[in-house]
Amino acid sequence: MKQTLRSLADKLGCRLIGSGSIKVTAVSSLQSANKESLVFVEDEQHLDTALHSAAAAIIAGEFATPDSASSVAAKPLLISPQPRLAFARAERLLGSAENHRVVHPSAIVAASAKVGKKVAIGAGAIIGERARIGDETTIGSGCVIGDNTGTAAGGGVVIGSHCSIDAHVTIYPGTILGNRVVVQAGAVLGSAGFGYVKDWETGRYERSPQIGHLVIEDDVEIGANSTIDRGALDETRIRRGAKIDNLVHIGHNVQIGENVVIAAQTGLSGSVIIEDNVIMGGQVGIGDHARVEAGAMLGGQCGILPKKVLRGKGVVFWGTPARPVKEYLKELAFVSRSAKKQR
Amino acid sequence: MKQTLRSLADKLGCRLIGSGSIKVTAVSSLQSANKESLVFVEDEQHLDTALHSAAAAIIAGEFATPDSASSVAAKPLLISPQPRLAFARAERLLGSAENHRVVHPSAIVAASAKVGKKVAIGAGAIIGERARIGDETTIGSGCVIGDNTGTAAGGGVVIGSHCSIDAHVTIYPGTILGNRVVVQAGAVLGSAGFGYVKDWETGRYERSPQIGHLVIEDDVEIGANSTIDRGALDETRIRRGAKIDNLVHIGHNVQIGENVVIAAQTGLSGSVIIEDNVIMGGQVGIGDHARVEAGAMLGGQCGILPKKVLRGKGVVFWGTPARPVKEYLKELAFVSRSAKKQR
Amino acid sequence: MKQTLRSLADKLGCRLIGSGSIKVTAVSSLQSANKESLVFVEDEQHLDTALHSAAAAIIAGEFATPDSASSVAAKPLLISPQPRLAFARAERLLGSAENHRVVHPSAIVAASAKVGKKVAIGAGAIIGERARIGDETTIGSGCVIGDNTGTAAGGGVVIGSHCSIDAHVTIYPGTILGNRVVVQAGAVLGSAGFGYVKDWETGRYERSPQIGHLVIEDDVEIGANSTIDRGALDETRIRRGAKIDNLVHIGHNVQIGENVVIAAQTGLSGSVIIEDNVIMGGQVGIGDHARVEAGAMLGGQCGILPKKVLRGKGVVFWGTPARPVKEYLKELAFVSRSAKKQR
Repeated sequence: MKQTLRSLADKLGCRLIGSGSIKVTAVSSLQSANKESLVFVEDEQHLDTALHSAAAAIIAGEFATPDSASSVAAKPLLISPQPRLAFARAERLLGSAENHRVVHPSAIVAASAKVGKKVAIGAGAIIGERARIGDETTIGSGCVIGDNTGTAAGGGVVIGSHCSIDAHVTIYPGTILGNRVVVQAGAVLGSAGFGYVKDWETGRYERSPQIGHLVIEDDVEIGANSTIDRGALDETRIRRGAKIDNLVHIGHNVQIGENVVIAAQTGLSGSVIIEDNVIMGGQVGIGDHARVEAGAMLGGQCGILPKKVLRGKGVVFWGTPARPVKEYLKELAFVSRSAKKQR
Repeated sequence: MKQTLRSLADKLGCRLIGSGSIKVTAVSSLQSANKESLVFVEDEQHLDTALHSAAAAIIAGEFATPDSASSVAAKPLLISPQPRLAFARAERLLGSAENHRVVHPSAIVAASAKVGKKVAIGAGAIIGERARIGDETTIGSGCVIGDNTGTAAGGGVVIGSHCSIDAHVTIYPGTILGNRVVVQAGAVLGSAGFGYVKDWETGRYERSPQIGHLVIEDDVEIGANSTIDRGALDETRIRRGAKIDNLVHIGHNVQIGENVVIAAQTGLSGSVIIEDNVIMGGQVGIGDHARVEAGAMLGGQCGILPKKVLRGKGVVFWGTPARPVKEYLKELAFVSRSAKKQR
Repeated sequence: MKQTLRSLADKLGCRLIGSGSIKVTAVSSLQSANKESLVFVEDEQHLDTALHSAAAAIIAGEFATPDSASSVAAKPLLISPQPRLAFARAERLLGSAENHRVVHPSAIVAASAKVGKKVAIGAGAIIGERARIGDETTIGSGCVIGDNTGTAAGGGVVIGSHCSIDAHVTIYPGTILGNRVVVQAGAVLGSAGFGYVKDWETGRYERSPQIGHLVIEDDVEIGANSTIDRGALDETRIRRGAKIDNLVHIGHNVQIGENVVIAAQTGLSGSVIIEDNVIMGGQVGIGDHARVEAGAMLGGQCGILPKKVLRGKGVVFWGTPARPVKEYLKELAFVSRSAKKQR
């Protein structure tokens, strides 16, 4: 959707330097920019490259204002205190072409399902009994939403408005999603947790009840092929704004706080609690019933033992078992030094 | 399915204390109990909470019998030597409402497939040539069972009776499942193993034959989005009662023993042997041709080198390379102490 | 497809010792061989077992020629400098029965899609707008190729010739695959990368533009349920001949070189560069913007920090942070020894 720089600057809250009548059609990298592209730079270092790129205009920080002589006239500038954020928002403003807002004739929507306005449902998608889908949500091709063929806990799936559920997503019955939730292809929401009881007489395992449900709040995003189990008896809950990467595993009864970030292939065992604003690297493993308190940061591949409580807003933890990174780096240095001496 | 406490106590082999005519409809946690709920407690510590909960009745151990004065009259009790197990079984007794036992008209069942009695097949599921599906098995919506479009080893898929195959499961041709097998959404059974031969003249890799098959015995349960490769020339086999969590990878030719438990995101390379009753934490990694002998326990994230043999029934191993946990903890303590001294 | 040993020897470039008129129908392991099987041995040690197996003929190295007395007459031999490679190729020669080369009537192919000759498309597969599928490619049942329901970057998917795309694969719009690419069930190609910008005023995250695409070159193979993100602004690229196992995660903007091998559950963060001929074990984790130079080998579970550059053709790295394995083993030995002394 072609827009003038003036219009974009207004919507983004940017200060415009240069001609507002120039039109751009898309954001782009510096390398692949063309004469209708909008690019961005976050530091003075890359400003020159941007000015010499093919781009039509540049989003930049205050550093790029006329004071910095070289930028005076070369290209129009949109000055923002948070240029990367303005760039992200510009993409959405430029990209929001109207999608197909239709239910594909091959989709199978149960008679008891309630589908909102301007909902798109892809080819072959299956919407189960009593599902409720909010306005302007898209359900990708081949999704299975609330399949009641199996023995999963009943209850229609609820999906809010403006959600984007990509192809091949499975959502078990009883799962509840808020608004603007994004789920990428192949993710599984609301599967049965991994809970078994051993019969001491036979030595065999029997499944514990997995009859709770899964609640995903507004603005949560979930990566491709990730799996999130429903609660055993009560609920698993992912709070507002949490962002979860690909191939992440979240066990039953887990509670994830607001704005938590979880990188790819991390796994959370049952009943783990992650408080608000925690940031987790990839391949982190957390044992059951552990708690990570608000604002902690976990380095990639670190491991946290069952029932452990990790404290420390702004502290980075690393290693298995996870300890403050400074401590861990000292240990690594000690071992490296000592082993070398012994040669 | 509403049942009297008397009837439940009989079926569960519990001793009933209190009125047998009271009816319950579901199991529940202490927090979410209502007046038709059955709850359980495993230790004296939580008995009081249970007695003061809204629940109709409590499954408990011997500790809760009238000797313990407070419990005399408050609520009916079902006394079991294994209260958690009785609770798990109670859920199945209460929950076993008749499922939809129909083949959805949109399912595509090959003419040569044989489907048993009371089988449910979900919308859009695809059942390939010569598949055999046992009585009272459910196949979820969107499953692909024995797709012969590709180049996978031929042979119809065999699925036993009382299995539960959830939505979006893929089962490659030639795979054989026993009875009461549970497979959660998105799992892939019988994919080609990761075996290549390098052509030394060109430096390129070519795929080794992956023409074996996968056998999954009775009572095995497999988590969401897990992947299990078929044998290269012979078979991959998962023995009776093994329980496998989400996002687990099992390579070609692997042999998994009875009642083995494997937590999420663990990965087993080709030709690994896991003997009976081994318990593995999450994110464990095992190199090809390694063997873990019966009854060993592997802590989360530990790693076992190719061809290694791990011995020790009841021994817990941890770290990479995995060693007895006591040894590993001493090493961690030594490093931590020594590094601190050097500050 | 039954073939004479003479014909096979010619096609494989093997020297035939013994009767060329004998026919074989399949390759097999020594254990499961029957009288129409072709087996192989790589070393003298297993030759005797092969000669006493039920197999019709044996592929072997020079070590098996008549000089080695026992082999003279027992069975026909196909002598190759690379017996394992010859065996792999024999399987393809014997196995290449004509597949079903049809488009299943339940597949949904967009009117604007271009489908080549002898293409197979499985039941319920969905081929989106402007997709192009090359000759003799197979698309498994339930695949979703180029679903434009969601908000993914537009552009038809391009798939080359002789590709094998198994069941339930999702390929996002704009993804480009070369020839002879193999993708196993449940893999997701071209999903949105994990890139967010924090709004410092609200503390909330917003998605960065993920509008690039994914290019997969000739002869790449990708395992079940693996996920590969498209570029953020430009491209993610997997170069010719790379082999990727199950449940692998590859982030946005990653560049993977020719003939790279990546074992199961390994994860590569955004903008990682893996140069040609690198070999990576399972569960390896690599931080964003790291680079692994040509010919390095990474042991299972090792971890590489963001922005790190790993040099060393033929060097094996292990541990987290990854270091040359010799160094790491010395460290492990030092710690083990020292901890024991302190008892």
